[in-house]
Amino acid sequence: MTPIPDLPTPAALIDVPCMQHNIARMQQRMEALGVKFRPHVKTSKSLPVVQAQMAAGARGITVSTLKEAEQFFAAGIADILYAVAIAPAKLPQVLQLRRQGCDLKIITDSAAGARAIAGFCAEQGEALEAWIEIDVDGHRSGIPPEADALLEVGRILHEGGALLGGVMAHAGSSYAHDEPEALRAIAEQERSGTVRAAERLRLAGLPCPAVSVGSTPTALSAVDLHGVTEVRAGVYVFFDLVMHNVGVCAASDIALSVLTTVIGHQEEKGWAIVDAGWMAMSGDRGTKQQKHDFHYGQVCTETGEPVAGYVLAAANQEHGIVCREQGEVDREIATRFPLGTRLRILPNHACATAAQFPEYHAVLAGGEVQAWPRFYGW
Amino acid sequence: MTPIPDLPTPAALIDVPCMQHNIARMQQRMEALGVKFRPHVKTSKSLPVVQAQMAAGARGITVSTLKEAEQFFAAGIADILYAVAIAPAKLPQVLQLRRQGCDLKIITDSAAGARAIAGFCAEQGEALEAWIEIDVDGHRSGIPPEADALLEVGRILHEGGALLGGVMAHAGSSYAHDEPEALRAIAEQERSGTVRAAERLRLAGLPCPAVSVGSTPTALSAVDLHGVTEVRAGVYVFFDLVMHNVGVCAASDIALSVLTTVIGHQEEKGWAIVDAGWMAMSGDRGTKQQKHDFHYGQVCTETGEPVAGYVLAAANQEHGIVCREQGEVDREIATRFPLGTRLRILPNHACATAAQFPEYHAVLAGGEVQAWPRFYGW
Repeated sequence: MTPIPDLPTPAALIDVPCMQHNIARMQQRMEALGVKFRPHVKTSKSLPVVQAQMAAGARGITVSTLKEAEQFFAAGIADILYAVAIAPAKLPQVLQLRRQGCDLKIITDSAAGARAIAGFCAEQGEALEAWIEIDVDGHRSGIPPEADALLEVGRILHEGGALLGGVMAHAGSSYAHDEPEALRAIAEQERSGTVRAAERLRLAGLPCPAVSVGSTPTALSAVDLHGVTEVRAGVYVFFDLVMHNVGVCAASDIALSVLTTVIGHQEEKGWAIVDAGWMAMSGDRGTKQQKHDFHYGQVCTETGEPVAGYVLAAANQEHGIVCREQGEVDREIATRFPLGTRLRILPNHACATAAQFPEYHAVLAGGEVQAWPRFYGW
Repeated sequence: MTPIPDLPTPAALIDVPCMQHNIARMQQRMEALGVKFRPHVKTSKSLPVVQAQMAAGARGITVSTLKEAEQFFAAGIADILYAVAIAPAKLPQVLQLRRQGCDLKIITDSAAGARAIAGFCAEQGEALEAWIEIDVDGHRSGIPPEADALLEVGRILHEGGALLGGVMAHAGSSYAHDEPEALRAIAEQERSGTVRAAERLRLAGLPCPAVSVGSTPTALSAVDLHGVTEVRAGVYVFFDLVMHNVGVCAASDIALSVLTTVIGHQEEKGWAIVDAGWMAMSGDRGTKQQKHDFHYGQVCTETGEPVAGYVLAAANQEHGIVCREQGEVDREIATRFPLGTRLRILPNHACATAAQFPEYHAVLAGGEVQAWPRFYGW
């Protein structure tokens, strides 16, 4: 990527050819596996990024907030799955979006949630579409595929006036693996558990058209998606150091970085101080438990070549400390990275780092830079 | 604080009477110690909060970004210290603000930085005001009080056409203490080191009108500020669990909390799932190394009473897991916090949590709720 001399720092850069490569790789994989792909837009929250995903063949989107649903529906995307169990107090907002023509689907994983949805449907005389969240790995939420609660929740929804639209699962535990075999196994566990839940619903006479699974690691590791209708993934669009440690991307696939400027040194300590602290990088330390701890990020030159062994070792709000990650103190740090030097930092977690910025600076193949807005909040 | 039934979650609440108490406490203390108080507005980035600080007697503000300087200058506050070492490329923006009438002061801690400032002043025919950052505790940046570089930097600025306006230090290492005696000692170290640096400059015939120190722990622990002209502190306005662990506030002094809703349960694990994940709380885990690890935050009832022993134990982007912090699994969690229950979470680090929200919901003494905007970005 070419240097961008006029850009104030810190700034969030997107390497657009790299992002397009990531989008094409995922979409081709999903097509080869015979499933629809529904990207999770919580990673970028930016229309040009999502438009690139749709242009490549994505069918609908996944959102983590109703604000994302509102923003992307306003931009013309109607097929939306809100993949966080619905809070009953949010049902009026869901209904409002559906009445405007948004094909918004909600999820639940409890009888209490299903009753709240069915009660609201009855009260409003409208059938909201709800999917049931399946727990395939004990990671967080969902109903285990073999649990009695699955059929109970299905019946409450179906008989209570909601549209039972399918089942969905997210194998979040896949982030904890870093071997291809283990990743393939968790992908198969995600697939088989979700498909089994769908079969149980259908055997009980309940509808279950959609069978939705996904996380970036499982989407890129699955070898067979029999019975699955669609896959969801988010962070693959930018990738990050956590995904690099998981083993599903090279460092050179990471499309998001933070441009920063050297503002001082502590030479005896081997520190260069930069203007990217946790406000720019986020407080995410996702690589800390992984095979390579990158602290707050991998240091690269302004044009994006990794400077091996140098990390953003510590961060305060607007200060970051760049130094060697181990070994001898670099007493030449002020010569290596003089005052005013621009560096790029690869993030631990792209979703978290991107969220700190009101806009991206998207660097196109020819070096042209475009400001791509992103939104935040709820 | 009264419940706020109509507020969508997650939401950032400010308990305004509590905030006003924190503001009055700090201001009274600074007046008793005979120093000016210059609050750091990076914590709130919100005009109504800063207006309350100014109304209580603050003299000028401290900022961590030039965007803060621009926003608060546009709102009528002219006396501004930008307390991050200046990147040379940011000097034109500084000059532009000063030409508009903003009394903006910048800092540096190196000969290279001083030369960049002096060179820019000469080139533009304008004297920017620069202060020298002093390192009192090896925490991050600054020149040690006895270092030769101090006089060198002072001379480059003063003889090079800048206004040498003073010295400033931030004893960031105070956050690592939790005993009053140690806090008093680090406060005295911050004072004496900064005053010593000022004396050395003056003995060398250089001007040094301002002697500025501060952090919330040292500001609230100092018993004598002889030689200091002003104190800076930021997080005291809201306080947080990190400051509670440091010992400078009670949990009941924490004015910022995140309102959240229970969206599901994993009863066998004793988990309630809530709609505040790291996107709402931030990824800050500042209490992890302290005497009481609150994980991602202390759980309170909707009206703000802490629920002893319950924390936000884990967080994904829009999901948080509420459970007992230790001991037996709470198998009654779904009865204790049923679906739709609203809880409030006290944050580890108010500056980081606040930054995740486009606005605060400020709850006044009578229960009235006002939306207070906040900005972000650079």
